[in-house]
Amino acid sequence: MSAKDISSEVRNQGLALYKAAPEAMQAFQSVMKVVGKEGALPAKLKELMALAVAINVKCEGCIVFHVQNAIKHGATREEVVETITVSVEMGGGPATVYGGKALAAFDELKA
Amino acid sequence: MSAKDISSEVRNQGLALYKAAPEAMQAFQSVMKVVGKEGALPAKLKELMALAVAINVKCEGCIVFHVQNAIKHGATREEVVETITVSVEMGGGPATVYGGKALAAFDELKA
Amino acid sequence: MSAKDISSEVRNQGLALYKAAPEAMQAFQSVMKVVGKEGALPAKLKELMALAVAINVKCEGCIVFHVQNAIKHGATREEVVETITVSVEMGGGPATVYGGKALAAFDELKA
Amino acid sequence: MSAKDISSEVRNQGLALYKAAPEAMQAFQSVMKVVGKEGALPAKLKELMALAVAINVKCEGCIVFHVQNAIKHGATREEVVETITVSVEMGGGPATVYGGKALAAFDELKA
Amino acid sequence: MSAKDISSEVRNQGLALYKAAPEAMQAFQSVMKVVGKEGALPAKLKELMALAVAINVKCEGCIVFHVQNAIKHGATREEVVETITVSVEMGGGPATVYGGKALAAFDELKA
Amino acid sequence: MSAKDISSEVRNQGLALYKAAPEAMQAFQSVMKVVGKEGALPAKLKELMALAVAINVKCEGCIVFHVQNAIKHGATREEVVETITVSVEMGGGPATVYGGKALAAFDELKA
Repeated sequence: MSAKDISSEVRNQGLALYKAAPEAMQAFQSVMKVVGKEGALPAKLKELMALAVAINVKCEGCIVFHVQNAIKHGATREEVVETITVSVEMGGGPATVYGGKALAAFDELKA
Repeated sequence: MSAKDISSEVRNQGLALYKAAPEAMQAFQSVMKVVGKEGALPAKLKELMALAVAINVKCEGCIVFHVQNAIKHGATREEVVETITVSVEMGGGPATVYGGKALAAFDELKA
Repeated sequence: MSAKDISSEVRNQGLALYKAAPEAMQAFQSVMKVVGKEGALPAKLKELMALAVAINVKCEGCIVFHVQNAIKHGATREEVVETITVSVEMGGGPATVYGGKALAAFDELKA
Repeated sequence: MSAKDISSEVRNQGLALYKAAPEAMQAFQSVMKVVGKEGALPAKLKELMALAVAINVKCEGCIVFHVQNAIKHGATREEVVETITVSVEMGGGPATVYGGKALAAFDELKA
Repeated sequence: MSAKDISSEVRNQGLALYKAAPEAMQAFQSVMKVVGKEGALPAKLKELMALAVAINVKCEGCIVFHVQNAIKHGATREEVVETITVSVEMGGGPATVYGGKALAAFDELKA
Repeated sequence: MSAKDISSEVRNQGLALYKAAPEAMQAFQSVMKVVGKEGALPAKLKELMALAVAINVKCEGCIVFHVQNAIKHGATREEVVETITVSVEMGGGPATVYGGKALAAFDELKA
């Protein structure tokens, strides 16, 4: 499945969930909004942080979502790659597999 | 991959495992049988609980399996949706992704 | 460490976090408030669901927190025990260890 | 907390759980009994495998339990250490922390 | 997705990651090399151990990778099956799902 | 257990592991060295990233270790707090518990 297809699936299934549980999902989105703002840490770096977590918890939809957001905030390939190396330090072999998916998603979505 | 295809794969691969390790798998199925019975908690609610866990441990095959069982025990869309919101409270962003998959599985399997 | 001590630690550390990041934590608490309400599923059952997740993700502070909430909503020992058996079905050996902690927390906090 | 104290806690809390949910726990113990037998793989190696998993899923009670069983089946310090290195390959930094606990448990329980 | 396709994807994405972060990935590969050697435990058994971990942390790419390595080191179907039963003891329902994937990968790659 | 005590335990148990498996641990430390260098991302930010992962994978020893390193690289309380909010977005309730531990560790170690 391409990163674009995963991205669409996450968006569509998220939208359906939002319609089904508007109150809870709106509350969760307010968490995302607060966390995503520029603050003590730049928004770009918080997206890369979220990506490092996504790789380590092995959530492919989250990887694509946060790679996409990182690109929107101007993250470079080098920054994504370094984020993946932190993930490998923290997650060993499985992080090389999910880190590989993250890099492939970056290359596809950036193209 | 559709929920129906995931469901078939889980069933077929589970069957092959059962044939290969009958004693261990029979023992595990006796755990499932005991847990699945009506008891201090209704079977339907225990299936929804298992679904909440499946979402939080990010096991897509388990999500489809327990959505299916929840439907068999009469779980409504509203109950599945609330189960997903508990998962989001306990699992944040990744739980919105896997919760979205759970709702999509419900909608497909219920149709 | 007793369940009461864990409970105090979670509360105190949570409070400090709330003071340090009021906007983000308030947003997250609104998620908890929405999810915790009576709805398609009774609040008690949603607490037990959260407990099943807490056992499976091996978060001891969460186990104590949700055992406590389940007690407040009138959950019986039998219901907590059945919640633990669902956890064991979903999490094997580690869930017997963390399920054992959950039962000990119930017995201590209920006493 | 010493490995001996963790071991007692796991045993006592497991016993209480067994009394509270005899049917489910007996079924789970039959899984453990079948898996623990000599078979295509020696019992000692299956205990070390379980230890590698315990380290990677960060379950301290399980680490102590399986270190103890590995000792009973004659596992040497070198074998436990190699099991830890496999865990580090599969789990990175966190596995060095929980692997360190495993080695400390071996040294304490073997003494 | 077949085990062969997963295997190619893991290899290709791993290669791209290696090119992008040669220093970090080379360092990690030296971990893999040291761990993979014959030692206090035979290399075959360490691959099976890594497989048990892969099943329990639900990393499909890792499952295929370590099944493949286990085959190269001469692991039999019976040994893989017993490895899966240890995983089920340690991981319950989700391990039956990912264990089923492991057995299917073995049967496909061995054929 | 105080952050200082956890820190000593991690250091001592890590040292014992290093002595027992020098080749594998040296290889892993070379991963840590490469990842920890200033690069496309500042070392401080990579430590905070590792902290976000540590909170999400619920490794208390790792939390203390990376809080300590973040302090050494000049991370402020505000930066640690924002790192925790990213963790809460990615990990829900359990991340508030382990995030609370991270903040407490910062406050203790910085004092």
